[in-house]
Amino acid sequence: MTYNPVQLILKKRNGKVLNSEELEYLFTAYKNNQLPSYQMAAFLMALYFRGMTVEEISDLTRIYINSSKLIKFPRNMKTVDKHSTGGVGDKVSIVLAPIVAACGGNIPMISGRGLGHTGGTLDKLESIPGFRTNLNYNEFVEQVKKIGVAIIGQSEELVPIDRATYALRDVTATIDSLPLITASIMSKKIAEGAQNLVIDLKIGSGAFIKDEQTADRLADYLLKTGENMEQRVAVIFSNMNSPLGYYVGNSLEILECIEFLHGKDIPDLKEITFALAQQMLLLSKIAKNPLEAEKKVYKCWQDKTALMKFKQLLAAQGGNSEICDKPEKLPQATYKIDIRAENSGWIKQIDCESIGYALVEIRAGRSNLDSRLDPGSGAYLPLKVGDRVERDDILGHVFCNDLKSGKKVARQIALSHIISDVNVSKENLIFKIVNPNN
Amino acid sequence: MTYNPVQLILKKRNGKVLNSEELEYLFTAYKNNQLPSYQMAAFLMALYFRGMTVEEISDLTRIYINSSKLIKFPRNMKTVDKHSTGGVGDKVSIVLAPIVAACGGNIPMISGRGLGHTGGTLDKLESIPGFRTNLNYNEFVEQVKKIGVAIIGQSEELVPIDRATYALRDVTATIDSLPLITASIMSKKIAEGAQNLVIDLKIGSGAFIKDEQTADRLADYLLKTGENMEQRVAVIFSNMNSPLGYYVGNSLEILECIEFLHGKDIPDLKEITFALAQQMLLLSKIAKNPLEAEKKVYKCWQDKTALMKFKQLLAAQGGNSEICDKPEKLPQATYKIDIRAENSGWIKQIDCESIGYALVEIRAGRSNLDSRLDPGSGAYLPLKVGDRVERDDILGHVFCNDLKSGKKVARQIALSHIISDVNVSKENLIFKIVNPNN
Repeated sequence: MTYNPVQLILKKRNGKVLNSEELEYLFTAYKNNQLPSYQMAAFLMALYFRGMTVEEISDLTRIYINSSKLIKFPRNMKTVDKHSTGGVGDKVSIVLAPIVAACGGNIPMISGRGLGHTGGTLDKLESIPGFRTNLNYNEFVEQVKKIGVAIIGQSEELVPIDRATYALRDVTATIDSLPLITASIMSKKIAEGAQNLVIDLKIGSGAFIKDEQTADRLADYLLKTGENMEQRVAVIFSNMNSPLGYYVGNSLEILECIEFLHGKDIPDLKEITFALAQQMLLLSKIAKNPLEAEKKVYKCWQDKTALMKFKQLLAAQGGNSEICDKPEKLPQATYKIDIRAENSGWIKQIDCESIGYALVEIRAGRSNLDSRLDPGSGAYLPLKVGDRVERDDILGHVFCNDLKSGKKVARQIALSHIISDVNVSKENLIFKIVNPNN
Repeated sequence: MTYNPVQLILKKRNGKVLNSEELEYLFTAYKNNQLPSYQMAAFLMALYFRGMTVEEISDLTRIYINSSKLIKFPRNMKTVDKHSTGGVGDKVSIVLAPIVAACGGNIPMISGRGLGHTGGTLDKLESIPGFRTNLNYNEFVEQVKKIGVAIIGQSEELVPIDRATYALRDVTATIDSLPLITASIMSKKIAEGAQNLVIDLKIGSGAFIKDEQTADRLADYLLKTGENMEQRVAVIFSNMNSPLGYYVGNSLEILECIEFLHGKDIPDLKEITFALAQQMLLLSKIAKNPLEAEKKVYKCWQDKTALMKFKQLLAAQGGNSEICDKPEKLPQATYKIDIRAENSGWIKQIDCESIGYALVEIRAGRSNLDSRLDPGSGAYLPLKVGDRVERDDILGHVFCNDLKSGKKVARQIALSHIISDVNVSKENLIFKIVNPNN
């Protein structure tokens, strides 16, 4: 069947539903360079405005998957993964994967790089001397089978239609389309072979989702697409109005992960990591009930088997596992600049997105996929919404190798903390958990 | 000033207003191949959904004009033109221009080709043996000065940003954006040097505008942009629920125009042509009041000075003016096929768009700008909404050079006449006239 692309763009533009053949024609032709990118761009923008039905989203996910190399694990293996919609200081994967692996899960994690104001797990891991994120699929599968966890980047064979589409979305202001986000997440997680998936759906100033209504819609798409694709999915709605943990920046976050795995109590990092880990154990049936899940997770953190698993992961992927005991071996920045409170009062709001973008200026984050990172730069930001500060108190520090930029960034971060002279309540970290599978 | 195109697309996508520098950057960069077409395509689709303010439309019109060669006539010359938003059987320009020129107007008409279901004035004129539509601008200006009228096509120097943008809109389903239509019409008519402009805004099954609300919005944009650009504009809202006149097809419509200029009464063609001509005389101050305008128009039609002007126009542009007295010199089709009524009753609806598309199959219209036309093919369609027919009555004829396609087209046209067994009222041809200048 041949289609007239203009008619298909028109159909979506006018709010009609496309069938799976029509979607397949468009996306496959685009990937094969048989549909001009300007037509795909117009289609994607029409789709941004008109949205998609759950059936269209499932069809698109299937089309994405059909274009992909599929990684397979034995059916009886308890494969489980997590996806986060992204935040500032979101280092969770780096501690979560070893914890769940230490509890008996198998985590075939294909992760991404940072872009815009959010960091990426791969960038953080690559600040560890020697760590390789480009294992081939054989190495990847073998490592997951052997030690229960591997974390790599997306190769060109993994869901190539999504890769091609994502690259176009990035330059046409069509990234934040919920149906496209759903197909992108679900197709990659299914293609990598994980049968169970927990989504950390972040909401707030540092997330791309700012409101509950949008979050509910995305969760609904993810859960229903999971159902249609026979993928077991749970969603945790979490707060991204304050940076997660105390540090933002690549090697700084690795350092923080190591401290956490050594037993340091970092309340918000611990709360979200443990909640996600528990859901992963429940979904993959490693734990029979929430209490058992909670106990397992706590135990492997406290007895350091999770730390051992992390060391094993580093060693398996060429990383220097000595950093776990000698963190000074991680890249460090030259300068440490104080960030000082502009006023006295309660922190009413932290504009995490602005903080993320400010940190791009000292190369702690990427402005585009070719940006070179400075692995040691970043910031220490211990305060959360609701904390009390006095004028001139230290709000945190900027770590950088360029003093002038660093000072500018420190000032921008100070301005990103909105301070109120009336009392502000602390916020919950976890809003709700939806797991229809148990 | 440099801009980030993604930020500008995002701005429009999120419903914000762009300033003139931002619009200029986007459209100029696109025309100069400095902005990828996929970004322009995404921007145009966002603009389709979000629209533009009158100020943005005026800015865009100005940007279009600034990219163009400008044709100038002496300020005291009464330059006036007409633009039609397009319909089926719309041959008005071909009789209107000679009438207004015969009344003392100067009509520097730059016209277009047909596309989709609507015909184009240039295609019709080119069915006249020898007629040239590619005069250079010197020839064009001199001819308007000498005989009061010239009709040519748009060269590459005329509003090149509109040309480039239109080509992209055509393949990305963004043609029917009212702000873009407004900028396109107004910039071309201002660049061609006409100080006064009457718009024939067609509404109905054969027009791209199907409802009054959309028509009002477009008229408002045209009138306000005219005001901002110091262009005197009037708008006639006219009915396009029945084909205009009796014939559709290139040489068939020329034949009909000649019959009309010879004095034949073709009610709807006469009504709309005279109304437009009167507004043109009023706008350009050739007539002081409606009654004077009416008299002047009627007189030059009745005493055949309009016919003489048409002959002069043909001669000036290399066309064989003998066709006016020997119409058999026009291209003619081999076959004439009857179109018969499927039922008895009153014609409730004529799907003029379907008729236009059906006629593309016998090459009376174009499917794309490279389509080769068959100048003699087309149809005789004398019935209007509200007319009474009996089953098997002749609804009209198809003229063609391919018998098989012609029969198919005759059947499609028959099906495009919806016949009701209850009485249907005849419709008005002219809905309203808006001329804020007098």
